[in-house]
Amino acid sequence: MQTRTLQLDLGKKSYPIYMGQNLLTQAQFLTNHIAGKQVMIITNTTVAPLYLNKVKALLSLLKVAEVILPDGEQYKTLETVNLIFDALLENRFDRSCTLIALGGGVIGDMTGFAAASYQRGVNFIQIPTTLLSQVDSSVGGKTGVNHALGKNMIGAFYQPKCVIIDVDTLDTLDDRQYSAGMAEVIKYGLLGNKAFLTFLQANIESLIARDKDLIIQAVYQSCVDKANIVAQDELETGKRALLNFGHTFGHAIENTLGYGVFLHGEAISVGMLMAAELSKLIGNLTDQEVFAVKDLLEKSNLPVSVNGKINALEFFDAMRVDKKAIDGNIRLILMKKLGESYISSSYQKEQLKQIINDFC
Amino acid sequence: MQTRTLQLDLGKKSYPIYMGQNLLTQAQFLTNHIAGKQVMIITNTTVAPLYLNKVKALLSLLKVAEVILPDGEQYKTLETVNLIFDALLENRFDRSCTLIALGGGVIGDMTGFAAASYQRGVNFIQIPTTLLSQVDSSVGGKTGVNHALGKNMIGAFYQPKCVIIDVDTLDTLDDRQYSAGMAEVIKYGLLGNKAFLTFLQANIESLIARDKDLIIQAVYQSCVDKANIVAQDELETGKRALLNFGHTFGHAIENTLGYGVFLHGEAISVGMLMAAELSKLIGNLTDQEVFAVKDLLEKSNLPVSVNGKINALEFFDAMRVDKKAIDGNIRLILMKKLGESYISSSYQKEQLKQIINDFC
Repeated sequence: MQTRTLQLDLGKKSYPIYMGQNLLTQAQFLTNHIAGKQVMIITNTTVAPLYLNKVKALLSLLKVAEVILPDGEQYKTLETVNLIFDALLENRFDRSCTLIALGGGVIGDMTGFAAASYQRGVNFIQIPTTLLSQVDSSVGGKTGVNHALGKNMIGAFYQPKCVIIDVDTLDTLDDRQYSAGMAEVIKYGLLGNKAFLTFLQANIESLIARDKDLIIQAVYQSCVDKANIVAQDELETGKRALLNFGHTFGHAIENTLGYGVFLHGEAISVGMLMAAELSKLIGNLTDQEVFAVKDLLEKSNLPVSVNGKINALEFFDAMRVDKKAIDGNIRLILMKKLGESYISSSYQKEQLKQIINDFC
Repeated sequence: MQTRTLQLDLGKKSYPIYMGQNLLTQAQFLTNHIAGKQVMIITNTTVAPLYLNKVKALLSLLKVAEVILPDGEQYKTLETVNLIFDALLENRFDRSCTLIALGGGVIGDMTGFAAASYQRGVNFIQIPTTLLSQVDSSVGGKTGVNHALGKNMIGAFYQPKCVIIDVDTLDTLDDRQYSAGMAEVIKYGLLGNKAFLTFLQANIESLIARDKDLIIQAVYQSCVDKANIVAQDELETGKRALLNFGHTFGHAIENTLGYGVFLHGEAISVGMLMAAELSKLIGNLTDQEVFAVKDLLEKSNLPVSVNGKINALEFFDAMRVDKKAIDGNIRLILMKKLGESYISSSYQKEQLKQIINDFC
């Protein structure tokens, strides 16, 4: 299959997303977007042995330095970003330099924030190497780090010069991480694109078997759908909230279990099914439709319950079901039908409690 | 004198600078620019006892919290900014919050960067309380912190919602700090505004005696001049460099002596006179004109030499006079005539060396 290009139209900040195979053996995707002579590759201890030399080989005419960070969400901190600043300054990199994020979402978020802040803004290129980061970090410009008191609390909106998605990098992704990424792909079908949902249902076995052509189609469509939603809601006041489909439940699972027990995508998988079940309870979906959601997630080897690991009271608390009672229900993204979601707080609290009980 | 307002036209990012007396007793300048209900005042141990309660008294209907940081350039770090994030999160401040910088340039730079980065951007208001920050930080949107390997290496361009300059806050500024601020005011006259230079020459004794009406005029004109230069060069590639008049020499002085021996404005004072002397050597200025520059600085109680504190070889090294020989001369801002400056590297290296020798 040929390389596909999705051009994101953001005025002066427009950039292309290249999607295909073998992109990391072709220098032009990268070098066409590097203006100066100084390049810093930021990656981690897992990805560096796999792809760092491959990327460096494309940049032989430039001054290339690298920062290899420890791997894991727990390192997504201001302290770790400071290691990037240290390396940039030790190498005397100036404002014309380019930072390349080579890795998953954590590397992309930190590198983007470092690029936004180094000398008040330098060039930035993303090479996402996980399915999750390919569909989730390529569009939207969100960069940042966690703080001990909250996730993604410190950051900037900052757009890359280009995103290079070589789906061959997925060959080295373990099955669990791959499935977790598929949860975010499925999200785009469920929340707003019935045709894409049908495509996923028809092809899920081949997708899970990592058919590259199908992956490129799925990643492309996910990026298109995300870009459309983001474009309609730059200020994050309305429609962009739909991107959180499954996430309010999912975050409650992550917060209760502690990070690392469920991968993010796994928690979102359970969260999306909970949202579907609640949507059924209030009369929007049929049994068959909820079954179809569950079936798609199970065929993706994703969890569909918390398997008794959380008790319902803890879950209530994490969702703040009772705390927010004074102000009314918390807002959730529910399904109107398959492939269409909406923001709602007009459900019965007892219905939400029933769903949580059923899943715990 | 009435309050003056300078409206900066930056499209969606436009904001007013209010200048006058008694502004910190009038709530509307502040409250008209606060959208949400959460306000965090960031100040330091020197300014807090003087003005914190005064500002808080204007905000009685809002949730107001404060962060009181240690005073000094050595605290302008990522670690200190993190204390602001801590306070924001401990107080559960959300995206609708407003950060108020109450203090000098260090407080303004750090607060601006914290506002740019907290939850990817929250509202920000500046109340500069030193003459230097009133003329230098009110315009240009530069925020940031120092890194062990370089000054202002980490930051963002981020505009405030408004700037409130109450010149009464200068009553508590010590004479040395006040004069150092005056060096930056004089800079605007020397680098590009002959009429303003004439005004300063005519009124310098009254300005140093802190005549409030004259101060407001001088601060207003400095902000207008800076805004005009910044507007002509948003990307910092050309004309904006003129704002560094006196700064290449000045930074060499600061770097050689270590920070704190000379105040920034004091180093700039010597640097501006060195630039004037070099301009004379290459035939642009007369003896009388250089004397006029020196006279203005001396009447402002500013230093006009380094008084034997630096030897010439150290100064050469700090200026990289010899290091950069391969690439030609370093670029300096020189004077074409009084009130007009230009960027130049077409001087003789021996001329630069002579100037440095003369001042050491």
